Amino acid sequence: MASTLLVEQHPIYELIFSRRDVRRFLSRAVPEAALKRILTAAHHAPSVGFMQPWNFIVVRDPAVKVKVKGMFSAENSKGARRFRGKRRALYEGLKLEGITEAPINLCVTCDPKRFGPHVLGRNTIRRTDVYSTCCAVQNLWLAARAEGLGVGWVSILRNDKLKRILGIPPGIIPVAYLCVGYPVEFPDRPELESVGWSPRLSLDRLIFLDRWGCLAP
Amino acid sequence: MASTLLVEQHPIYELIFSRRDVRRFLSRAVPEAALKRILTAAHHAPSVGFMQPWNFIVVRDPAVKVKVKGMFSAENSKGARRFRGKRRALYEGLKLEGITEAPINLCVTCDPKRFGPHVLGRNTIRRTDVYSTCCAVQNLWLAARAEGLGVGWVSILRNDKLKRILGIPPGIIPVAYLCVGYPVEFPDRPELESVGWSPRLSLDRLIFLDRWGCLAP
Repeated sequence: MASTLLVEQHPIYELIFSRRDVRRFLSRAVPEAALKRILTAAHHAPSVGFMQPWNFIVVRDPAVKVKVKGMFSAENSKGARRFRGKRRALYEGLKLEGITEAPINLCVTCDPKRFGPHVLGRNTIRRTDVYSTCCAVQNLWLAARAEGLGVGWVSILRNDKLKRILGIPPGIIPVAYLCVGYPVEFPDRPELESVGWSPRLSLDRLIFLDRWGCLAP
Repeated sequence: MASTLLVEQHPIYELIFSRRDVRRFLSRAVPEAALKRILTAAHHAPSVGFMQPWNFIVVRDPAVKVKVKGMFSAENSKGARRFRGKRRALYEGLKLEGITEAPINLCVTCDPKRFGPHVLGRNTIRRTDVYSTCCAVQNLWLAARAEGLGVGWVSILRNDKLKRILGIPPGIIPVAYLCVGYPVEFPDRPELESVGWSPRLSLDRLIFLDRWGCLAP
């Protein structure tokens, strides 16, 4: 595979190819210094108008995790019902979060009003503040991989309920709820690929030249 | 500054701290192999339900760039009018894009219907498909930095007009319009920080423990 060639170019490629959405964690604690480093990585993400709209709620309290896990379980049952037959069975066999096992949960939020109502560069595409927050998540995810830490993004949550559990004020947007800890393993491939849920797409078919649909020669 | 300590941990930290939103480009061409590597990095981003919702429109045609630049200029004039006095003057002195100078422009899009209407993990937070696409952009941005390539995100555009210029079908969401090329420089600090538009926030004040507003001890 091409990635063998790429990793020789720079260590970033090895991080990118070996980063996984981790759902199985060891109980080993995350060192404070490592947590601070990955949060510093997040904080150095790009942001529209340099607004740095993010906050980081570090969740360590087991009682809070249990509430979030309960909400996940309810929503995940509803999610499973959208699929039928073999796909339903496959879905129900997947482990889609590690909320209570992970030593740390991390909610990354976006404050759209930071530095006032007008943000340089945000006048036409309003959600670029959330986009910036996603870039911060990806910085954190790659830095965590470099630290040997696994990160799992739990997307099967209801933001209204999450805001109540974490006391997040109106107007603040929860963007990502992450589980962070040392992983049982970093598998070679994404789990949804290895269990046959979806294939890795061919990159060449996703690249167009100058206009949508024009494949590069 | 703390970053000196961090860069010794792993090369990723140096990339993260020295990545910039680049608006001034050299005319030097981007090697095909380097472009392919950074697109491969983007394609290995996490995605909700492993849906890989992205496409990459590589824009090389100067006529297309000129159309996009014209649209930027109109929207940027409107954006400037949101600010007054010194801030208005500061805004008008900023260079906020490098569309026509950059050898490559790159539009990164999101297809919310890839692999069908139901996406594993997207039943509650619908825009996680766009969030995945933002993670792809950040992978590309960091890989580009490792290649010595600069990336600038042009957010002052209207997506409806951009879709017409690039022939993007209804339903497909343009997420990022990037300029890519070798930069004149990678400045030490973000330009909006060094010109005094906004300060870098203190990370410690952005971190809460277990609940919004609870500063860690």
